[in-house]
Amino acid sequence: MTDETSLNNIREYFPFWQELSEREKQLIYDNAVAVDYAKGEVIHSGEDDCIGIMLVVSGEIRAYLLSEDGREVTLYRLRSGDICVLTASCILKNITFDVHIEAISECRAFIVNTAVYQELCAGNMHVENFAYKLAADRFSDVMWAMQQILFLSFDKRLAIFLSDESARTGSDYIPLTHEQVSKLVGSAREVVSRMLKYFENEGIVELMRGGIKILDKKRLRDLIGI
Amino acid sequence: MTDETSLNNIREYFPFWQELSEREKQLIYDNAVAVDYAKGEVIHSGEDDCIGIMLVVSGEIRAYLLSEDGREVTLYRLRSGDICVLTASCILKNITFDVHIEAISECRAFIVNTAVYQELCAGNMHVENFAYKLAADRFSDVMWAMQQILFLSFDKRLAIFLSDESARTGSDYIPLTHEQVSKLVGSAREVVSRMLKYFENEGIVELMRGGIKILDKKRLRDLIGI
Repeated sequence: MTDETSLNNIREYFPFWQELSEREKQLIYDNAVAVDYAKGEVIHSGEDDCIGIMLVVSGEIRAYLLSEDGREVTLYRLRSGDICVLTASCILKNITFDVHIEAISECRAFIVNTAVYQELCAGNMHVENFAYKLAADRFSDVMWAMQQILFLSFDKRLAIFLSDESARTGSDYIPLTHEQVSKLVGSAREVVSRMLKYFENEGIVELMRGGIKILDKKRLRDLIGI
Repeated sequence: MTDETSLNNIREYFPFWQELSEREKQLIYDNAVAVDYAKGEVIHSGEDDCIGIMLVVSGEIRAYLLSEDGREVTLYRLRSGDICVLTASCILKNITFDVHIEAISECRAFIVNTAVYQELCAGNMHVENFAYKLAADRFSDVMWAMQQILFLSFDKRLAIFLSDESARTGSDYIPLTHEQVSKLVGSAREVVSRMLKYFENEGIVELMRGGIKILDKKRLRDLIGI
């Protein structure tokens, strides 16, 4: 089998693989599972929900903060090949906050459950070290998001988002509703709609049902200031 | 010497001390230095300024974000016994952002410079592991700050700040100017002054030259909602 979604490929995700004993490798093979998530499905929400280390095989997930009154702020997104460590936050004793994680699109993931990862951490320092390094990666992502949200004017922030999405998908059409964009940039839907309408009036984008088409990339870049 | 500010006490700060070889211990003793900072002095600012692992012996420091137009947002504060790892962010390859760090009060710190800590990390995994766990602690602090800033209404946020300061110092008098409070809570000075004036009109605090006196603890707690 050369199917990249096969569990046999799980070794590719773990840089510490060569540091594992045969028993430890077998422990992972025996316990890892492949899980499929529907678009919009909540993967992790709250401290009691510690599913383990999650390897994103296909699709896309996002981590976000949720306020008491239901506001959401996206912290980062993970795609194929990325590993989500905060779904295993109970393993990391120094992580004392919690984020919500959901599938943005249909997703497949490999999961090594908490008990197994904890056993590996206890017996092999490389495994624990790897998890903390992953957390540091996410720390960097969160700091980036925080700086965007706190310091950038909203037109610039939205322009960066549209430009990043377009570059990532290689398309001028961004198939997201205003509601979806607002969750991803961490602003109220009304604010997003107002700014998109402004962009449309300026001829920078065209608003379509269920999506946004970029018409003037140069003006978008000008807004970002690059 | 039983002086707690003596460099001989540096071993107390490092939980990995017993995992070190005699040579590694000596490397720390030979290279650690004690540094004194004046109130307001900038300790670390920018990626090129990687001074090493900093142990706070006395006084208080804060880490903050700085926008291009000079706005500041405090991320966390560290006091006697705490260790600042982001002054050594260049050691942690997975940390790709940078914060500014300054002395809030007169401070004494022990510093193990970057080259020495890097040598220890390379030879002893416990040392590297410790640094990443510290980074995870700071990650938790930053997430807390982010939730405060993004989600709490400002009256609640300011009430929590005043209440925390009072509890921490065991005094009803908080010797901070509006300018200093605004930097610590991450809001504009005008906003802080307006809210403090409102608190004063409500009889919750009395504003004095160079400080704030809490008059009504119950109302302050009511604002926080506890």
